[in-house]
Amino acid sequence: MKLATLKDGSRDGQLLVVSRDLGTAHFATGIAQRLQQALDDWNFIAPQLQDLYDALNHGRARHPFPFDPAQCMAPLPRTGQRIEGAAYPNHLQLVQPALADAPGPLLRQRASDDLRGPRDDVQVADEAWGIDFGGELVAIVADVPLGATPEQGLDAVRLLMLANDTTLRQWAAPPAAQAWGAVASQPHTAFSPVAVTPDELGDAWQDGRVHLTLQTSWNGRKVGMADAGADMRWGLGELIAHAARTRRLRAGTLVGTGPVSNAGVEANGRREWPKGYASVAEKLAMEALQDGAAQTDYLRFGDTVRIDMRGRDGQPLFGAIEQKIVQFGA
Amino acid sequence: MKLATLKDGSRDGQLLVVSRDLGTAHFATGIAQRLQQALDDWNFIAPQLQDLYDALNHGRARHPFPFDPAQCMAPLPRTGQRIEGAAYPNHLQLVQPALADAPGPLLRQRASDDLRGPRDDVQVADEAWGIDFGGELVAIVADVPLGATPEQGLDAVRLLMLANDTTLRQWAAPPAAQAWGAVASQPHTAFSPVAVTPDELGDAWQDGRVHLTLQTSWNGRKVGMADAGADMRWGLGELIAHAARTRRLRAGTLVGTGPVSNAGVEANGRREWPKGYASVAEKLAMEALQDGAAQTDYLRFGDTVRIDMRGRDGQPLFGAIEQKIVQFGA
Repeated sequence: MKLATLKDGSRDGQLLVVSRDLGTAHFATGIAQRLQQALDDWNFIAPQLQDLYDALNHGRARHPFPFDPAQCMAPLPRTGQRIEGAAYPNHLQLVQPALADAPGPLLRQRASDDLRGPRDDVQVADEAWGIDFGGELVAIVADVPLGATPEQGLDAVRLLMLANDTTLRQWAAPPAAQAWGAVASQPHTAFSPVAVTPDELGDAWQDGRVHLTLQTSWNGRKVGMADAGADMRWGLGELIAHAARTRRLRAGTLVGTGPVSNAGVEANGRREWPKGYASVAEKLAMEALQDGAAQTDYLRFGDTVRIDMRGRDGQPLFGAIEQKIVQFGA
Repeated sequence: MKLATLKDGSRDGQLLVVSRDLGTAHFATGIAQRLQQALDDWNFIAPQLQDLYDALNHGRARHPFPFDPAQCMAPLPRTGQRIEGAAYPNHLQLVQPALADAPGPLLRQRASDDLRGPRDDVQVADEAWGIDFGGELVAIVADVPLGATPEQGLDAVRLLMLANDTTLRQWAAPPAAQAWGAVASQPHTAFSPVAVTPDELGDAWQDGRVHLTLQTSWNGRKVGMADAGADMRWGLGELIAHAARTRRLRAGTLVGTGPVSNAGVEANGRREWPKGYASVAEKLAMEALQDGAAQTDYLRFGDTVRIDMRGRDGQPLFGAIEQKIVQFGA
């Protein structure tokens, strides 16, 4: 099933069930007001949401209305924990080569007080901070016990979303990164209009990996057509088990894959990345490797970013993230 | 006023108003069920809680009952964000000297999905992981805008708590720290029975600092009597402004001071720390500096830790954290 959260002026919004084709929505009122309530008591609430989803898809729901991604908050607007993984070695090899050879997936604790909707502007105070995008997949998980296995981790995946994780590259580099950790460098993450249960992916969901194409557009130009399955070294089950190595995780925890990024190939005597890039920092690294110098600038105020992933049938899956970079306070 | 959260089997518990002497409590039902509700709408809800607090202190509340810290969850059992500062340079100088000379306060993003109660056991899978305690102060803040000043940061402090931040030293050192960040090394933080508004501290609250003694006991022996005001290089206003340098913080965000730690003094030709230590890692560093070798072991299963802070009049303020280290799954 597919779930979304409608902006209603509150901090948690109103839970919606959304039809498979993202055409119509229905309030989940009477089942659960907020997505966190459903996550807290999933085995009891999810079947009721599924029934409503089935009714909506078959035109039998009582009060459907047109679904508008522009009215969406993040499916889960705030939650207790967010862990960001780095499951695609190619991204680290390009952007943080010193960390690329770690024997396990890198994990970082991140903020989850202010998760943004798919059409929310990215507000940044200073264009010179090196504004970058980053398309990835994020799982919302159930309770996970301390010491969980990768199989238990995979079983705990309740919902999947797309995310655009804005990074301020000047704050991600030393000395700022040493002082602030990720507090300053990752101020804003937006999520797809809907969160979907893994069964919506069909055969494209294998071993904790989504074997579909993540499309990234920058100012309307397609810059990335990344295969999210092929070069994902650790599946979500492994990431979740890794996160629970010394402690339990509570329901609603977000576990992200890091930017979806495919390995380069040797062609015409030089290394190329035919599937494009998932962040401008990758593009800069590619240019430096290919030509000795980076050419591209980071994002400017007014720039737009679009991140989407469709099913193998070309149909909408999560809905698209479409954001504009704007100056804070302007 | 003083607020607590009663264990009721739910994930957020029941909000209580607690009398100044921590003798009696009263359900806040009818005002707010959960502390996060009060934080979301503080200007409306806090005056009602204050009225109940006043009535409770004057014996005029309708249904008071004895307050039992053993029945408490953390005052805020889960929230959207937790930022851990390092406001006491002495701790870094001893434990992470490479980071001690930073021009501003170090900040790190931390988990906030599973904040523990004052009497909850610390469950650890392996005694060899280097189990350590760490007494500190933690503020619960209101909404803070991007680019807030230290004055705005200070104004945003809604409530203060004590915390015991358990660290697994083996996971806090390379290479684990590089791979996991703080995800694995800081599995468990317990909070004082009550959270208090800053006015409860009277003159001891100055410039975002609490000028009172943080008492740490290990297996019943007092090992730290730290002055929480004297050597706090950055006040909570500065920590909060620093955290909001590139983004806003949402109501309920926790901002911690890091372990409360006083500078050493030269005495009898060697450096001494007459106020003791806030964590075993500090003690090991002191021993290495004094005698060339660390003598003390980290905590063992069955050990107890007690962290408390009283008012200048000797009366209870936050209530004490009292925890036992136990083996997970045993």
